[in-house]
Amino acid sequence: MNSILVINGPNLNRLGMREPDIYGHETLADLESRLVEHGKGLGYDVICKQSNSEGQIIDWIHEAQNTGFVVGIVINPGAFTHYSYAIRDAIASISLPVIEVHISNVHARETFRHTSVISPVTRGQIVGLGFVGYELAIQAIIKGGN
Amino acid sequence: MNSILVINGPNLNRLGMREPDIYGHETLADLESRLVEHGKGLGYDVICKQSNSEGQIIDWIHEAQNTGFVVGIVINPGAFTHYSYAIRDAIASISLPVIEVHISNVHARETFRHTSVISPVTRGQIVGLGFVGYELAIQAIIKGGN
Amino acid sequence: MNSILVINGPNLNRLGMREPDIYGHETLADLESRLVEHGKGLGYDVICKQSNSEGQIIDWIHEAQNTGFVVGIVINPGAFTHYSYAIRDAIASISLPVIEVHISNVHARETFRHTSVISPVTRGQIVGLGFVGYELAIQAIIKGGN
Amino acid sequence: MNSILVINGPNLNRLGMREPDIYGHETLADLESRLVEHGKGLGYDVICKQSNSEGQIIDWIHEAQNTGFVVGIVINPGAFTHYSYAIRDAIASISLPVIEVHISNVHARETFRHTSVISPVTRGQIVGLGFVGYELAIQAIIKGGN
Amino acid sequence: MNSILVINGPNLNRLGMREPDIYGHETLADLESRLVEHGKGLGYDVICKQSNSEGQIIDWIHEAQNTGFVVGIVINPGAFTHYSYAIRDAIASISLPVIEVHISNVHARETFRHTSVISPVTRGQIVGLGFVGYELAIQAIIKGGN
Amino acid sequence: MNSILVINGPNLNRLGMREPDIYGHETLADLESRLVEHGKGLGYDVICKQSNSEGQIIDWIHEAQNTGFVVGIVINPGAFTHYSYAIRDAIASISLPVIEVHISNVHARETFRHTSVISPVTRGQIVGLGFVGYELAIQAIIKGGN
Amino acid sequence: MNSILVINGPNLNRLGMREPDIYGHETLADLESRLVEHGKGLGYDVICKQSNSEGQIIDWIHEAQNTGFVVGIVINPGAFTHYSYAIRDAIASISLPVIEVHISNVHARETFRHTSVISPVTRGQIVGLGFVGYELAIQAIIKGGN
Amino acid sequence: MNSILVINGPNLNRLGMREPDIYGHETLADLESRLVEHGKGLGYDVICKQSNSEGQIIDWIHEAQNTGFVVGIVINPGAFTHYSYAIRDAIASISLPVIEVHISNVHARETFRHTSVISPVTRGQIVGLGFVGYELAIQAIIKGGN
Amino acid sequence: MNSILVINGPNLNRLGMREPDIYGHETLADLESRLVEHGKGLGYDVICKQSNSEGQIIDWIHEAQNTGFVVGIVINPGAFTHYSYAIRDAIASISLPVIEVHISNVHARETFRHTSVISPVTRGQIVGLGFVGYELAIQAIIKGGN
Amino acid sequence: MNSILVINGPNLNRLGMREPDIYGHETLADLESRLVEHGKGLGYDVICKQSNSEGQIIDWIHEAQNTGFVVGIVINPGAFTHYSYAIRDAIASISLPVIEVHISNVHARETFRHTSVISPVTRGQIVGLGFVGYELAIQAIIKGGN
Amino acid sequence: MNSILVINGPNLNRLGMREPDIYGHETLADLESRLVEHGKGLGYDVICKQSNSEGQIIDWIHEAQNTGFVVGIVINPGAFTHYSYAIRDAIASISLPVIEVHISNVHARETFRHTSVISPVTRGQIVGLGFVGYELAIQAIIKGGN
Amino acid sequence: MNSILVINGPNLNRLGMREPDIYGHETLADLESRLVEHGKGLGYDVICKQSNSEGQIIDWIHEAQNTGFVVGIVINPGAFTHYSYAIRDAIASISLPVIEVHISNVHARETFRHTSVISPVTRGQIVGLGFVGYELAIQAIIKGGN
Repeated sequence: MNSILVINGPNLNRLGMREPDIYGHETLADLESRLVEHGKGLGYDVICKQSNSEGQIIDWIHEAQNTGFVVGIVINPGAFTHYSYAIRDAIASISLPVIEVHISNVHARETFRHTSVISPVTRGQIVGLGFVGYELAIQAIIKGGN
Repeated sequence: MNSILVINGPNLNRLGMREPDIYGHETLADLESRLVEHGKGLGYDVICKQSNSEGQIIDWIHEAQNTGFVVGIVINPGAFTHYSYAIRDAIASISLPVIEVHISNVHARETFRHTSVISPVTRGQIVGLGFVGYELAIQAIIKGGN
Repeated sequence: MNSILVINGPNLNRLGMREPDIYGHETLADLESRLVEHGKGLGYDVICKQSNSEGQIIDWIHEAQNTGFVVGIVINPGAFTHYSYAIRDAIASISLPVIEVHISNVHARETFRHTSVISPVTRGQIVGLGFVGYELAIQAIIKGGN
Repeated sequence: MNSILVINGPNLNRLGMREPDIYGHETLADLESRLVEHGKGLGYDVICKQSNSEGQIIDWIHEAQNTGFVVGIVINPGAFTHYSYAIRDAIASISLPVIEVHISNVHARETFRHTSVISPVTRGQIVGLGFVGYELAIQAIIKGGN
Repeated sequence: MNSILVINGPNLNRLGMREPDIYGHETLADLESRLVEHGKGLGYDVICKQSNSEGQIIDWIHEAQNTGFVVGIVINPGAFTHYSYAIRDAIASISLPVIEVHISNVHARETFRHTSVISPVTRGQIVGLGFVGYELAIQAIIKGGN
Repeated sequence: MNSILVINGPNLNRLGMREPDIYGHETLADLESRLVEHGKGLGYDVICKQSNSEGQIIDWIHEAQNTGFVVGIVINPGAFTHYSYAIRDAIASISLPVIEVHISNVHARETFRHTSVISPVTRGQIVGLGFVGYELAIQAIIKGGN
Repeated sequence: MNSILVINGPNLNRLGMREPDIYGHETLADLESRLVEHGKGLGYDVICKQSNSEGQIIDWIHEAQNTGFVVGIVINPGAFTHYSYAIRDAIASISLPVIEVHISNVHARETFRHTSVISPVTRGQIVGLGFVGYELAIQAIIKGGN
Repeated sequence: MNSILVINGPNLNRLGMREPDIYGHETLADLESRLVEHGKGLGYDVICKQSNSEGQIIDWIHEAQNTGFVVGIVINPGAFTHYSYAIRDAIASISLPVIEVHISNVHARETFRHTSVISPVTRGQIVGLGFVGYELAIQAIIKGGN
Repeated sequence: MNSILVINGPNLNRLGMREPDIYGHETLADLESRLVEHGKGLGYDVICKQSNSEGQIIDWIHEAQNTGFVVGIVINPGAFTHYSYAIRDAIASISLPVIEVHISNVHARETFRHTSVISPVTRGQIVGLGFVGYELAIQAIIKGGN
Repeated sequence: MNSILVINGPNLNRLGMREPDIYGHETLADLESRLVEHGKGLGYDVICKQSNSEGQIIDWIHEAQNTGFVVGIVINPGAFTHYSYAIRDAIASISLPVIEVHISNVHARETFRHTSVISPVTRGQIVGLGFVGYELAIQAIIKGGN
Repeated sequence: MNSILVINGPNLNRLGMREPDIYGHETLADLESRLVEHGKGLGYDVICKQSNSEGQIIDWIHEAQNTGFVVGIVINPGAFTHYSYAIRDAIASISLPVIEVHISNVHARETFRHTSVISPVTRGQIVGLGFVGYELAIQAIIKGGN
Repeated sequence: MNSILVINGPNLNRLGMREPDIYGHETLADLESRLVEHGKGLGYDVICKQSNSEGQIIDWIHEAQNTGFVVGIVINPGAFTHYSYAIRDAIASISLPVIEVHISNVHARETFRHTSVISPVTRGQIVGLGFVGYELAIQAIIKGGN
């Protein structure tokens, strides 16, 4: 079955435990099972991964391209958003569509969170819409064009 | 019926005629009828407006709050995104949820398009996903919380 | 009778409804009737206008100069304060004294509110003193020199 | 007859009355009749418009493209030069040649006047040559290529 | 009797002697007797002090808080406005209302005069209105709220 | 006969050979003979010079002032536009009118080309209008005032 | 026994070998045994870890929170200090007190070392006091409040 | 007996009265007697001084060098931290070790508090650890080397 | 035999697959065998490594110093070039000569690629010369001094 | 007799003791007696003062203007050079010629020493010429014009 | 025979005499004869030129293109590297490959040496490798492609 | 006889003709004969040169070092002050003392005149003292040390 890869970056393993006023009380496991369900309803296999390591995330991006069955990537790069030119280059080096998601409205938080070095090489971004943002990103990958 | 207001800002009346490599060949009328249909399917009345005038857009934002039947606003502020603190203040002055949409991936274009003075007072942003972005924004308004 | 023109800019029509912790609970109508009273006590006709449109405000500034009976302008340019070089030029193009008023202490708020492109061409500014600030500005116009 | 549209932006209605050491003593009416004469001598209909409203100017730019008989636009955007990305986008959205004119040498005045957000999308600029600058711009439109 | 403390900072002892085109020909003594009169008319004791020393001004701010009869401070910090974070902290450390006054329109002068490190911790500012500015500040303290 | 001096700066000797998509296929000789013709038609002797050396250009500017028959200078300073404060001072040291010309629209090219250290001391600038720009500059010198 | 976790970041495994004029001649092993001793004397178990990998350090921070017996973290983030927003978020996501330590006085070295993206989410910092800084940090964790 | 000089800068005389959520409820007198006790326990005479005057603090720094019995200085420069290059030069002009202390975590407060012009010429800094920070600084002076 | 270590950083494992207009069609394996050959011809053992992980690269740099047979390092840090102060510190912590190589002319690409935090601690850089750049770097290590 | 006032600012009382590689081994007393001698030889009374207090220096500047016999001021403002807008205003408030002197070449030292907020209001500066600089400044005051 | 042009810019005629700790003790003549030898060994005629004049260097670049036998240019622009947009344009105006060389590691020196306005229009750069860098640049020109 | 070389840079040949309110009415010839006289009185041969060419000035600086009888250089680099890193490097490459002179107080003029790229490599600067400044510079060279 066609698959969509969802990558969550550093500290998102602490969802539900970390600053709940910003990120809510649901955990990463909650998010992942919700996305798998959502994908299933749309006929897609949603594969969820999380890592605190930049190198690991780059490897996953490269591998997704090579699988043959992943049709797009939804990525929440966490804090790597703001400085990982290495993840940016990884995304630029593949041809799969990539959509960047942020749970909170990063533009209403600290200044350093306003800059994404990743955005220029993604197809688009969905920001501030909570877990719903991931679901909409999955739909956007499936709908493809505009 | 509950309504959602969609506001398109300056120059979006030239969609389909303007820089088609960036904005595609569909017109504003195409977009608006598509969104009305999309809303209808979800049980919502989608009201579409466009203006090249900052003052007009501010008036519409104020009025939406007063109608009683508008439950949220989807706004593509066009170039006002980058400097209209007046629209920012208008959005901050109401309690309806507002989602900011951009058709193209503004982060892959000129530097001045990377800054939105509107984003900090919206609930969230959907960027770079074409007309689909408006549809996803309507869904996000309807789904409400996260 | 000699008149003083009071111009309120964008979103000030939502006074009392908008962010009451910053702007208080009194409405624009309350402010305007208070200023008319205040002017009357000092023997001046206070004329109050509000618009969300930059072009409208520029027109009013030009017209005030031509009336022959307006002796000064009190202006709260709202968010136009921070970017409307067009209003700045309008003020610079007339010879009436103009005093800039802000209800809240803008210097204790977001950074973008610290810059006024209007201030260099006004006679002076009164900031952070609430509705009282407008009254003091009217007095300052009447007292003329230093 | 082929036409050339001349658009004057905010505060230019005060030409001759405003800061005469910078802008001279001739009025907007003087300028406009001079340009109509100049056009007539070259076999072109010169249409002159002025507005203090950004939205109005954008509408005129769009309409010029649709007329079929306007062959180019000469625009003095006044203070909108320095921040109206919306006018910039309007110019970018049409295919007519547009030449930007400034009466005074803006580069010898305040720093904010040194930046034009309009220039990158125009064909060229004529700056500091007074009313003559408009006449030269009309010639440049008529001569077309280089 | 309730008192209002007026503090004038560095070089204001040279009022009337220093750059009269900016500051006028009246001396500090003229200003102070005028303010004492103005206060008397409103039923308040106006106490005027001047120092060229940052430390002395900080001491006066602390002492005002402890007197029990000073109900507010009007301060023209002179050039300390632009760099004395120590005076800023002194004002932030007391609960009396403080209003910042500048005789000239500092926003029409050198760039370094456009920044006040004091403003964020005052209740408000009155700028460019000459000696009248001090009188209005005294009124604002007396009127209290908005 | 009255003369107009046209100075072309560094690399303009390679016109027609250098980046023809920006500068066209006509050579410096083509430009110069065209300008001489243009001047003749207007009753003026056009003298054309080119140098890659900053010192040489400064010398020519000084000498023009001393000739007695040069009535104005048209200068395309090439890349010296962006850093030669020495040429700027040379222009400021003479009383002849000087008009700055650029063949291409420098504001649509690399950022460093957006800044001219020369502009503030010239009468005006004509930018982006190709060889026509030089002809219009000659006219502007002849027409003198505004 | 209650424990304190000491984390040393990248390149600190080369202590004693690396730039000894800055970092001294004692090795990481020397430091660690000294800290274990110091902790023992105060009745605490000091656990020392070092890694050159950002992901590994984030994992350790998360785990410390979950142990139940770690009461605080002393961290020298090495060069990650200057850009690892991911480590910053890891620290912000836990409730244990964290104290940042630097062996050398980073404020007397290269400019990039003057900025810590970590400091805002730690309780405090001890900088420039050599190995003694770690000992003082351990004491500060034990003393708790102020 | 060997002595350690503790200098507290502007506004620290208002400790316990000023912003207690930041600085706590203990007064300067509390702090000073605590430090004298702490020093006594370690066999050192702790001398505590406070001034709101930059010149006074510079004088004390010079004098400490000349006493012969002061072995080090602990200084909390208050707001002078951010701009007093004169205090910086005073510290640089002596050979005694100087340790800079801040009660609160200045890096989690306003931006201007993130910069210390003093730090480059001190031996080290202890920040955010409350009154404990002073005690640790005293220990660091006594322990001398690393 | 004396060895030279060649380290390729993140995403260079995708050479030949990634943006071939920038990086060419040859793969990392092609590059590595070419360098091994080149080294052999000069009597040196070239050891090639690639990793997407910053921590791994730091470990390799440390280990090279300890081998005793590596005489220099050629490193293409990929995107780490622009932010990895940790790799910078690793290079600064060893005494082997290190030469930085970039395949493409990074100075002709995006702005963020113009800054290398690594360069100040390397012996030199070879930029924009494709795979040849690595070969020249190997020669430079072997030739030693200048 | 006509007098020249020489003011030395903060830390210059430590001349000869402070950083002798920068400031030499002669003391402030040496400098002062040398200047008195130098003045005597030229028929002028040289009065030397030094203070670490900004307020004191401002007072002296004011008083010099009032004496009637001081014909000019030579000032080395020490570190106040870089931030004391209050001393700047004091100098601007008097009509005596003021020459700024620095012993060392401040432009070859730390960046913060490159900026003088004092220079724009002095007649001129003599920098980097040691004690000789003061002597030359005294001559310049005496020679008056250019 | 095919030739390679080596251009050395300002002050390189003082090699061996100037700052030998940075540039070594060998003279320009030494360098040039070494490069001629090196070229001969590779079957190329190496032509060496040096000038302190920007205009002269631009002329040489233009002429090289016209010779027909020069196949590439190696240039060390000296200090012109940092501001000569005129040399940049000269290089951009020709089609020969140009390689930029710097003897010392400019990235480890003063900040102004970190920026090259030349680099974006060269094929590549070799920095910090002493005279060897020129030899490698000659090889790179001969090897042509990657 | 021992000589002192005085170099005047671009546009100083127009002294007395150029902006006399800034530079006075005396010509370069006046200045030069005055300096020759001044030197003669002190037993030194003053050699005066002027050029508008950067390359020429660099050559003169190199030659001065080689003469054997020039003991120091007084240079007014004119506008080259602000960007000629090539002249800076020329001065740094010689061992003669160099003193930089400016006739007017450049710090009271346009911002670009506040920065000297030359100052860090000179012994000192004399600014704003008119022709007298050159005389004082000659004295400073002769007096040698401090």
